Amino acid sequence: MDVLDLGELEATARQRLDQGVYDYVAGGADDEVTLAANTAAWDSIFLRPRVLRDVTKVDASTTILGTAVSCPIGVAPTAFQRLMHPDGECAMASGASARGCLMVLSTRATSTPADCFEAAPEGLRWYQVYVLNDRSRNERMIKDAVQAGISALVLTADTPVLGRRRRDVVNQFVLPPNLGGPSLELEPGEEGNLVDQAADVTFADIGWLRDISGLPVVVKGVVRGDDAAACVDAGAAAVWVSNHGGRQLDGCLPTAVALSEVVEAVGERAEVYVDGGIRRGTDVLKALAVGAKATFVGRPAVWGLATDGPTGVELVLKGLKGELKLAMALAGARSVDEVTSDLIAP
Amino acid sequence: MDVLDLGELEATARQRLDQGVYDYVAGGADDEVTLAANTAAWDSIFLRPRVLRDVTKVDASTTILGTAVSCPIGVAPTAFQRLMHPDGECAMASGASARGCLMVLSTRATSTPADCFEAAPEGLRWYQVYVLNDRSRNERMIKDAVQAGISALVLTADTPVLGRRRRDVVNQFVLPPNLGGPSLELEPGEEGNLVDQAADVTFADIGWLRDISGLPVVVKGVVRGDDAAACVDAGAAAVWVSNHGGRQLDGCLPTAVALSEVVEAVGERAEVYVDGGIRRGTDVLKALAVGAKATFVGRPAVWGLATDGPTGVELVLKGLKGELKLAMALAGARSVDEVTSDLIAP
Amino acid sequence: MDVLDLGELEATARQRLDQGVYDYVAGGADDEVTLAANTAAWDSIFLRPRVLRDVTKVDASTTILGTAVSCPIGVAPTAFQRLMHPDGECAMASGASARGCLMVLSTRATSTPADCFEAAPEGLRWYQVYVLNDRSRNERMIKDAVQAGISALVLTADTPVLGRRRRDVVNQFVLPPNLGGPSLELEPGEEGNLVDQAADVTFADIGWLRDISGLPVVVKGVVRGDDAAACVDAGAAAVWVSNHGGRQLDGCLPTAVALSEVVEAVGERAEVYVDGGIRRGTDVLKALAVGAKATFVGRPAVWGLATDGPTGVELVLKGLKGELKLAMALAGARSVDEVTSDLIAP
Amino acid sequence: MDVLDLGELEATARQRLDQGVYDYVAGGADDEVTLAANTAAWDSIFLRPRVLRDVTKVDASTTILGTAVSCPIGVAPTAFQRLMHPDGECAMASGASARGCLMVLSTRATSTPADCFEAAPEGLRWYQVYVLNDRSRNERMIKDAVQAGISALVLTADTPVLGRRRRDVVNQFVLPPNLGGPSLELEPGEEGNLVDQAADVTFADIGWLRDISGLPVVVKGVVRGDDAAACVDAGAAAVWVSNHGGRQLDGCLPTAVALSEVVEAVGERAEVYVDGGIRRGTDVLKALAVGAKATFVGRPAVWGLATDGPTGVELVLKGLKGELKLAMALAGARSVDEVTSDLIAP
Repeated sequence: MDVLDLGELEATARQRLDQGVYDYVAGGADDEVTLAANTAAWDSIFLRPRVLRDVTKVDASTTILGTAVSCPIGVAPTAFQRLMHPDGECAMASGASARGCLMVLSTRATSTPADCFEAAPEGLRWYQVYVLNDRSRNERMIKDAVQAGISALVLTADTPVLGRRRRDVVNQFVLPPNLGGPSLELEPGEEGNLVDQAADVTFADIGWLRDISGLPVVVKGVVRGDDAAACVDAGAAAVWVSNHGGRQLDGCLPTAVALSEVVEAVGERAEVYVDGGIRRGTDVLKALAVGAKATFVGRPAVWGLATDGPTGVELVLKGLKGELKLAMALAGARSVDEVTSDLIAP
Repeated sequence: MDVLDLGELEATARQRLDQGVYDYVAGGADDEVTLAANTAAWDSIFLRPRVLRDVTKVDASTTILGTAVSCPIGVAPTAFQRLMHPDGECAMASGASARGCLMVLSTRATSTPADCFEAAPEGLRWYQVYVLNDRSRNERMIKDAVQAGISALVLTADTPVLGRRRRDVVNQFVLPPNLGGPSLELEPGEEGNLVDQAADVTFADIGWLRDISGLPVVVKGVVRGDDAAACVDAGAAAVWVSNHGGRQLDGCLPTAVALSEVVEAVGERAEVYVDGGIRRGTDVLKALAVGAKATFVGRPAVWGLATDGPTGVELVLKGLKGELKLAMALAGARSVDEVTSDLIAP
Repeated sequence: MDVLDLGELEATARQRLDQGVYDYVAGGADDEVTLAANTAAWDSIFLRPRVLRDVTKVDASTTILGTAVSCPIGVAPTAFQRLMHPDGECAMASGASARGCLMVLSTRATSTPADCFEAAPEGLRWYQVYVLNDRSRNERMIKDAVQAGISALVLTADTPVLGRRRRDVVNQFVLPPNLGGPSLELEPGEEGNLVDQAADVTFADIGWLRDISGLPVVVKGVVRGDDAAACVDAGAAAVWVSNHGGRQLDGCLPTAVALSEVVEAVGERAEVYVDGGIRRGTDVLKALAVGAKATFVGRPAVWGLATDGPTGVELVLKGLKGELKLAMALAGARSVDEVTSDLIAP
Repeated sequence: MDVLDLGELEATARQRLDQGVYDYVAGGADDEVTLAANTAAWDSIFLRPRVLRDVTKVDASTTILGTAVSCPIGVAPTAFQRLMHPDGECAMASGASARGCLMVLSTRATSTPADCFEAAPEGLRWYQVYVLNDRSRNERMIKDAVQAGISALVLTADTPVLGRRRRDVVNQFVLPPNLGGPSLELEPGEEGNLVDQAADVTFADIGWLRDISGLPVVVKGVVRGDDAAACVDAGAAAVWVSNHGGRQLDGCLPTAVALSEVVEAVGERAEVYVDGGIRRGTDVLKALAVGAKATFVGRPAVWGLATDGPTGVELVLKGLKGELKLAMALAGARSVDEVTSDLIAP
């Protein structure tokens, strides 16, 4: 398969997955207003391509927190990847690594960071953290992750409680009993729930995470300029604009809209990333033009994983990177530095 | 059922009700433009959740006119509830009381206030008033209501004449002959009509109602800042933004839009409430963020009543309150005081 | 039939008419963009009703060019009414007269003004004029109309050539051979065409028409403020905002939008009317609030005529007037003078 | 057939063409967002017609780069016209010439310029250029075109690489082997690909093309004011606002929107043209009112060609010109000079 069509890929993945698992990934909170708004918001941004630039060479590579990546497209953390493929996060890690893309491993992974590094030693990998009531558990998990080679922590900030996803309720979706991974240190009966997840996470936890890990901390789930600035003040190395793919607070503004406020508030003090509704290379181009340093895809990577394991993940990342390079060439931008805000129609 | 699905609940209620009764409740005036606009207006408001706040404890309780309620969600007055359930307003009162929610009893009730207090003595109950041409009749009705324990009057201001509801005309909907309640003092042949309803109600009636009852007067049906200010000048304790659920003047602006103008005009001088299209806890959150002190639901409570009597009413109120608390937690608001206007995208 | 539903009435009329005749009336130019925009534009205006006004008495009566009418709703000129009913314009005139409404008789009528006055002597009637290349023909027609009792001329300004209506092309619609009326002085072969219609009509013709008739001249088909002012400068007594029901220049802005520009340009110097998409009493209320002195309906009157002759016309006018009065009461406006611009949401 | 119905014409053409060929012409890049936006953008512009102007004579003729044309509607360059009709570009040239319209011959033509001039010697013809890596090839092709009688070059600026068109991928569309024309000097295996097309085209190539040809150079594919000004600075005689019919960068802003920015930036220094979504004479009128000197149609001309060869092309051009003249008359514009920006609603 040379040509990427994420719609087609999702359809294929849907056929291979149980309905409950498919809906768990595809669904959003409540009426899925934000889920739909996320993709629509990118479509409603129009591009102003430049012409008559020499685009013989187009280079999509960039750095994320100082580390080189092949393109500003990473794999967002998603839970329980063994639901979608027997090799789960290891397969995802292999696919991402093969394309030179950053992967973020979820706290709620079904493989350990160490497993992922064993499967694909070269990859750039971050570790997503839900702060737990028992913070000593966090410390043990983070220690293992650091030891395995994780290079940054991603604190998920938008999930003090779990959003309600109608499809999971309708499907009475529960995780199979054999999914608990060593990463999460699940106790019996905890699987698939956030039993120990803390609701008292605050900006102070950013410094705590940095201190116990010695790693830069990225805060994910921010949609406001003031919150973004507060994260940076509290020591965050980067802010990740996200509404959890429309899975938490339904009615939350789309990330394409929130991004510009966050970019303005953060300025040059930290990197800004964005996820939510990124489905095309042109969406990535738009996000960069608004001011994101990088973008992340969650569901598309899962559809690739479900369809063809590491190869499917590669297909998605290669396809999106190819689309981005094509869009850059057609917009007259030879490098990500040349993707500036004038490429966006006001 | 832990999770509220109002769409499903309405479908169930629809099956249990006569088509004419269902349409009487569900329908709006003329082309139902305002009916549709009411719900759409809430959906078009996007939220800007705050993150990294300690939301271990979220408290949705508040006060309405100084009295404690479990949450800022009350039951709006709706007519003839024995059409939907044999115990009518008594069942509604029981359900609301069990959830600590304010209920507003309609002038056009099929049970008396006294009946409602007997059925559920602890509940907080207000009494909605249509001013009649024979104001002595109003006085008798209000006297009975006060005696029964009613703690405020709600003057409906948007119904000097009855709006025309196409569905009722098509269905040739008439009330069954045995519905007249002592509350309304219906004469034979008056049922379901507003034969004695006055069209000469003015701001002066606010003071009159306050004087004859000794109770605070809430004016319901206001959609303009100037009218709201005039109500307060005339002695209103609160202003209730409403377009009668889209049942009166079709083309009236949606309440979510009118709310901000009214809030601005009234300031700190009186409380402001809103109804119309509130179907989710996130809608309540949005209304509070715009500046409402409380919200009211009409049709959703009726679907609960029709489906399962007091238990159904409880289901709706508990569900909405649960959604509100979840939305508050996800928006970083621990109390209703923390629900401020910055939670709304401009 | 007590209750008006224009959609239902149109459906009935459609069944009674040949497809070609129905489409001739219902259709618009080219892609019918303006046809659809006309009705949508009224729907997109929202009302800000006033409450707590004494609306015991609501009076929709007004004057048009100084003459009393029962309500600000007149019958717009439409051609060839014998296509829709055997008594054609005479039936239309009877219906309008019975409801105290102004009727505008078309140049392209299938009855003479004299016939109409014979059928309903009391009615207020104006005469619509297409200027012809042979202006002496206009003079004869206008002389007859004046003699019959016509009290104003309506110069149609938006039809120097005929717009192209796709439905008529598809239907190969032609007028039946026996329709030519004395009014139009049709030569054989001219029926249904504008063979003699002048394309060189200018503002100067306003004065000419006034002079040859001794009557006030209303200019119909204006959608711009500058044109409206020029009409008044040239002697027009009133300006009628119209895009010919979307039948001439497709893509023309909707009349609800053009109205405010024209009202502002004309000020107190002349009366302003509007047609196009008026289907509800609330539309009339909106038009008055924007600044129109009166509104006109074309297609709705034709559906009434086709369905039930004069009685059908009465049904439409009575229905719209009833809706207007209901809307006025619900908006707190006791007279048309109280319908001011604050009733419209900005 | 006197009346143009492009929808019907496209349907006819579709039946006569292979699915792959039809889709090759009809399709756009990726999700066809820009393809749809192009037509929608013209529809969203509303006209403000003037009335009471003497429109006895309406003249749509104009000049393009100083040469008289019957109307401001030309045939945009489209590739491989022998796919749609056996006489390909020669048939297109005949049709355009017969209606006094400018035709732009594509570099990727299946007939040479000389063939076209032989088929219709009188026509006004320009030659579209893709700059190739082997610029000597360009020089030979341009020399032949100049010799044949071409009067201007059109440099396509928006195609440094080829956009990805989903339909062609799905259809696995490839050109038939016998289509290569002498014009393109195709090597075996090059057909249908842009193997030799240069990605290093810059503003400097404008002067180069002018110098080697001695002809004025029009730059096609510009959607930004700054790019347009840079083209003029570099020696362009005209700027052609285009997004390649939505076939290159999906998400590019629609040409109706880009046009006003380009018109403002270029001022009186050069002519401005526009294509993309022009389907009606009213669209042409809108484009002229925004400031275009001329408009071009691509797909409509191809549907005419596919349906009926030169006669079909004539039908399209005659139909659009007729629509334009009708729209001009109805808007009170007697000449293209009278089509000014006040005809557009703000």
